[in-house]
Amino acid sequence: MKIKVILPVISTQFNSEVEKEVQQFVSSEAVVEIEHLDKGTASIESAFDEALCAPDIIEKAVQAEKDGFDAVFIDCFGDPAVEAAREMVAIPVVGGFQPAVLTASVLANKFTVISVLPSVVPMIRGLARKQGIEGNLASIRYVNIAVLDLSDASALKANLLSQLEAAVTQDGAEAVVLGCTGMLGLAHSVEEAAAEKGFQIPVIDPTGAAVGFLELLVRNGLKKSGAANPTPSEKPRNFYPEGSILKKT
Amino acid sequence: MKIKVILPVISTQFNSEVEKEVQQFVSSEAVVEIEHLDKGTASIESAFDEALCAPDIIEKAVQAEKDGFDAVFIDCFGDPAVEAAREMVAIPVVGGFQPAVLTASVLANKFTVISVLPSVVPMIRGLARKQGIEGNLASIRYVNIAVLDLSDASALKANLLSQLEAAVTQDGAEAVVLGCTGMLGLAHSVEEAAAEKGFQIPVIDPTGAAVGFLELLVRNGLKKSGAANPTPSEKPRNFYPEGSILKKT
Amino acid sequence: MKIKVILPVISTQFNSEVEKEVQQFVSSEAVVEIEHLDKGTASIESAFDEALCAPDIIEKAVQAEKDGFDAVFIDCFGDPAVEAAREMVAIPVVGGFQPAVLTASVLANKFTVISVLPSVVPMIRGLARKQGIEGNLASIRYVNIAVLDLSDASALKANLLSQLEAAVTQDGAEAVVLGCTGMLGLAHSVEEAAAEKGFQIPVIDPTGAAVGFLELLVRNGLKKSGAANPTPSEKPRNFYPEGSILKKT
Amino acid sequence: MKIKVILPVISTQFNSEVEKEVQQFVSSEAVVEIEHLDKGTASIESAFDEALCAPDIIEKAVQAEKDGFDAVFIDCFGDPAVEAAREMVAIPVVGGFQPAVLTASVLANKFTVISVLPSVVPMIRGLARKQGIEGNLASIRYVNIAVLDLSDASALKANLLSQLEAAVTQDGAEAVVLGCTGMLGLAHSVEEAAAEKGFQIPVIDPTGAAVGFLELLVRNGLKKSGAANPTPSEKPRNFYPEGSILKKT
Amino acid sequence: MKIKVILPVISTQFNSEVEKEVQQFVSSEAVVEIEHLDKGTASIESAFDEALCAPDIIEKAVQAEKDGFDAVFIDCFGDPAVEAAREMVAIPVVGGFQPAVLTASVLANKFTVISVLPSVVPMIRGLARKQGIEGNLASIRYVNIAVLDLSDASALKANLLSQLEAAVTQDGAEAVVLGCTGMLGLAHSVEEAAAEKGFQIPVIDPTGAAVGFLELLVRNGLKKSGAANPTPSEKPRNFYPEGSILKKT
Amino acid sequence: MKIKVILPVISTQFNSEVEKEVQQFVSSEAVVEIEHLDKGTASIESAFDEALCAPDIIEKAVQAEKDGFDAVFIDCFGDPAVEAAREMVAIPVVGGFQPAVLTASVLANKFTVISVLPSVVPMIRGLARKQGIEGNLASIRYVNIAVLDLSDASALKANLLSQLEAAVTQDGAEAVVLGCTGMLGLAHSVEEAAAEKGFQIPVIDPTGAAVGFLELLVRNGLKKSGAANPTPSEKPRNFYPEGSILKKT
Repeated sequence: MKIKVILPVISTQFNSEVEKEVQQFVSSEAVVEIEHLDKGTASIESAFDEALCAPDIIEKAVQAEKDGFDAVFIDCFGDPAVEAAREMVAIPVVGGFQPAVLTASVLANKFTVISVLPSVVPMIRGLARKQGIEGNLASIRYVNIAVLDLSDASALKANLLSQLEAAVTQDGAEAVVLGCTGMLGLAHSVEEAAAEKGFQIPVIDPTGAAVGFLELLVRNGLKKSGAANPTPSEKPRNFYPEGSILKKT
Repeated sequence: MKIKVILPVISTQFNSEVEKEVQQFVSSEAVVEIEHLDKGTASIESAFDEALCAPDIIEKAVQAEKDGFDAVFIDCFGDPAVEAAREMVAIPVVGGFQPAVLTASVLANKFTVISVLPSVVPMIRGLARKQGIEGNLASIRYVNIAVLDLSDASALKANLLSQLEAAVTQDGAEAVVLGCTGMLGLAHSVEEAAAEKGFQIPVIDPTGAAVGFLELLVRNGLKKSGAANPTPSEKPRNFYPEGSILKKT
Repeated sequence: MKIKVILPVISTQFNSEVEKEVQQFVSSEAVVEIEHLDKGTASIESAFDEALCAPDIIEKAVQAEKDGFDAVFIDCFGDPAVEAAREMVAIPVVGGFQPAVLTASVLANKFTVISVLPSVVPMIRGLARKQGIEGNLASIRYVNIAVLDLSDASALKANLLSQLEAAVTQDGAEAVVLGCTGMLGLAHSVEEAAAEKGFQIPVIDPTGAAVGFLELLVRNGLKKSGAANPTPSEKPRNFYPEGSILKKT
Repeated sequence: MKIKVILPVISTQFNSEVEKEVQQFVSSEAVVEIEHLDKGTASIESAFDEALCAPDIIEKAVQAEKDGFDAVFIDCFGDPAVEAAREMVAIPVVGGFQPAVLTASVLANKFTVISVLPSVVPMIRGLARKQGIEGNLASIRYVNIAVLDLSDASALKANLLSQLEAAVTQDGAEAVVLGCTGMLGLAHSVEEAAAEKGFQIPVIDPTGAAVGFLELLVRNGLKKSGAANPTPSEKPRNFYPEGSILKKT
Repeated sequence: MKIKVILPVISTQFNSEVEKEVQQFVSSEAVVEIEHLDKGTASIESAFDEALCAPDIIEKAVQAEKDGFDAVFIDCFGDPAVEAAREMVAIPVVGGFQPAVLTASVLANKFTVISVLPSVVPMIRGLARKQGIEGNLASIRYVNIAVLDLSDASALKANLLSQLEAAVTQDGAEAVVLGCTGMLGLAHSVEEAAAEKGFQIPVIDPTGAAVGFLELLVRNGLKKSGAANPTPSEKPRNFYPEGSILKKT
Repeated sequence: MKIKVILPVISTQFNSEVEKEVQQFVSSEAVVEIEHLDKGTASIESAFDEALCAPDIIEKAVQAEKDGFDAVFIDCFGDPAVEAAREMVAIPVVGGFQPAVLTASVLANKFTVISVLPSVVPMIRGLARKQGIEGNLASIRYVNIAVLDLSDASALKANLLSQLEAAVTQDGAEAVVLGCTGMLGLAHSVEEAAAEKGFQIPVIDPTGAAVGFLELLVRNGLKKSGAANPTPSEKPRNFYPEGSILKKT
């Protein structure tokens, strides 16, 4: 089973770390390949960033299917271009949001998403509404650290822990979802630190949930719904430059 | 009051018709200017089309604010790039969906959206969920005609009328929203034809609702919410070509 | 375009102030006329007050249509007698609640209504439920000042500002609706004061939203839905005194 | 235990029949007294009718409390003036809607209300939304007979039976609520006729549910919530004529 | 009217107290009989406890119907085995949850359940969701006292009072439901103590609401819905020991 | 990774078929062991059946954890005893419902569950409500065949196909969930037959989704939430016979 991870950032700096993260969560049957964007933004923290990254995400998803991949993970919690990519390929495509919150929905009636900045809260609420599970959200919290500043792991972990504690005691959360795929390698240690303080609260890493869902979908032979994500019809489209594989689509 | 209408299609063929449509619905205080896209698609009927049109829509919205416009109407029922454009400008921005369904919500507890093709139904449902008014939808129906084939007004009108009748008698609709901004100049005549058959059902034209909402917002001095649509932070973005005003954003 | 404003109070003391307020928000095409009640209560702050004002509100709405008005604004946030008046006339009728919260719904996913007294909170919740947008309410707050004591503008403004701050920081509000049409002339200055404290939060004046919606409806030629607000059938009704124009209805 | 039944119609013609109906459903401890309106309408089938009946309903509820009654049933499925009457008295007040649909909610996950005319459907939907139980409604159906024409019991029964059958087989209803308190004496026989056709579906008579709820509330010593229905404050009210007990309220 | 109260605990220690509690709330027409379990647990505070008590609850409900009882009250707020018992008998069966929250729904738009321990909160939320009234819950609170330690009435009362105050002032509750049928004899005195502090908040005792609902159902001749709780079909079942009346079912 | 499949039926007749079914969907890392019940019922089609099977399901889940299994699948679409089993073990436990509907929620905005008999519809609706995803259900349909009669695969397949077609064309389903874990080996062939008729609709087998979810949870190191499913406290419990491992719990 070949899984393509599209990292929607325009630098190579996270590739190896993300690969390490993904490898932790896949079975021995999965072969994973990471790819970042040629055109887009340094990180996605706004609808504007999503709009600028979307065309190249779609292009890379289409290429992945052509290259024989079985599934695509668009590695961002905002699920950027997920619906558009699904329209263009038959293989399963997920972002970070859906698999994480649906995994949380198995473990908890109410859960909290802890994300990066206040600016992404409306985006996450919008995704929860579209998914029809806003009622399962205890709250949306944030550590108030930008994506590109997440590298200080110990400060981030302390911050996540205090948000988790507030989520449980004030908001009634029974589980926690890390609301950014850039919070690498922390889910388990936050969970353990919380357990030491008496909170037996699952902490869901969106990367792990995403690749787990893709393995599930591939093993079940499940492909996209033509009713939910119909293939776009032919029409004039002048967007793509020479060299784009989407030119002839 | 200057209103910019961004028509998210890559041809000039609809400009004059749309201008005529818009003029019907604005006050004498409004000056309207229509502009189509340089880069994008011939029409928007999929998330893929939206993704391809979004960058140029945003660019034109930013330019409109620089040019002193007071408000922007992105003239498509799918509200393409509306959230992203709002992040980048302070003046009010609406698409076709929000104003139309909120106007319908004043007139009716339950209303039906009649759109073009089955392929846009999931998109419309998603917008209704994001807006938090899915419970007010009696149904989403369609005439099964592509956007670019809407020009046969009499066939379209007959089709809309029979969908309206089904919406009222089978789905409990109390009002109807035309679910495509390309259904030009038909709302009133469909309403009259329905009245002749005994159905006193308001038919909402999304163009009229949109420009009406923009006039309302401008006269109330209401601009975007910084909490709902925060201005994107500075970061590397390599998407735009030379010449784009977004280069320096 | 002639707009009748029915002020549901039994004194003339607010007429000129309300007229000034309304004039701020209408286009040059709108001619506005204010009228208060002959029979009713000094202000509406309970379902009891609504019940006592309803008959004369309806009578004045019917008279307005007979007098050639194009639209009616029942100038109270509780939307008193709005449904009943709609049944009796074809021209658009709105109160203060619907236009304000639907305008807020364009600008924000979650917004807070700040009203006068705790006693009106259940009424406002009921209206939000009927409208199907309770899920968009971040909270319902109040300044704890009765309608007839709202004249101390500076105390009211300070109070509104602190409620706005709490709404944003504690409840997640992205916009604020003034929940009483008697909070005259304050929306803009509260918005500015909030902006100075770093909160870019639109503050919606229900009067401005209401007349804006009426202009929108009139310019779109939209009248009442016969399915939502059917004309009452003939039957014995002994309620009205001699002289009532409803006698013969 | 003394229960006052306020029949919101301006004729005496239903008094004895209603008394007979109520007696079927009360315990031996309940003393029931029926009273119709002096001012109002011949029946309630619109928000307009409700507005005209409300003042006298409130007056009679206040008088009932003064006269030592323990509870008030406002005998109409539209719950007219229920909230206003609750504000003015401490004893329990119910209409026909709330007790019936909440009783149905014990017996069924999904139930259908079968009412009189299409014109009352929006009113019933509004009540269901305000009550927060719209999701439990399988459908709202109607027999298409006006209240004052319900006297032909056998035609009504046949009509109810066919609506019940459609509600169960097409809408997924597990119970049925008669949506008009004027459908006297039919619940049990409709239930039996349905059972003969193989449908074991409880049919709830709103009158029986209402007086049952009042007995429950009185025996539990439960009075109104001051938070939900606060007593109106003092203020000028010029509505009531000489002789009204509300004059001095 | 004969009402069977099944007390789902395996000791006799509460029988007389519960009988006294029930007698307070029934009419003179009701004959009440209490019965505890032979097999089960000392109290129900988990889904595990419910699973262990369910078989004997069902057996005793079936026996009650055979013995001529008209209705069954399964005396626990978790509604254990209520759906299963309804499948096996035609007479009305209720637990403590449904009647209490539906009674609260008449008196209040938003109410708080105050239960025993944090561990039962998910159970109560699940019941509220199944009932379709989660939106009416202001909050679920708890006194943090286990069922078997509820006997210290004055500590419990003080605790309930402070939870009530928090529910009203922080969560917007308009009524309170005691969320455990073991909080005997306290509803009225908590209500009075709250009133002395200025909170006019109905406090609903689940036992009183349950028997009140059963009297309502019996007097209305309402039995179970065959669509909601169909009688189980014949099939091999080897669960019950010799002597069980369910052996031959 | 060792996965225990608890088949909640009291015969051995399905063991080998189920094992074959499960093997199709697991990775090479998973070792699967099937176990049926000693005490319970021949199949689960009612809350009564669930109640009778629950104690032995819990016992076998506890034993599985003691025996070193990493996860438990309770192989029934009704999720019988899932919550109770979770309380008693730390390893992940799922039934058939949650994983299937959450998988469908990734692929579709609206999906239909096709189950066995009308009698299980209320059970499935209750599970959907508890999960908070009732709004994502296009409909609940059934083939009207009892679990023990599902062995005629070709009749079942034809029936499923016609229900799928109705779900898509009448109810707006974008995906289909097989609503009984006894519909073995049919998901893929129904999907293919539907595709031949032009419906590109994913058909989700609950068995495949369940073991896929368990692999995901185990690989993510996710265990139960102590807040959602707290371990039951010590107290007298006399339910279990000599020999039960739950005796001392």
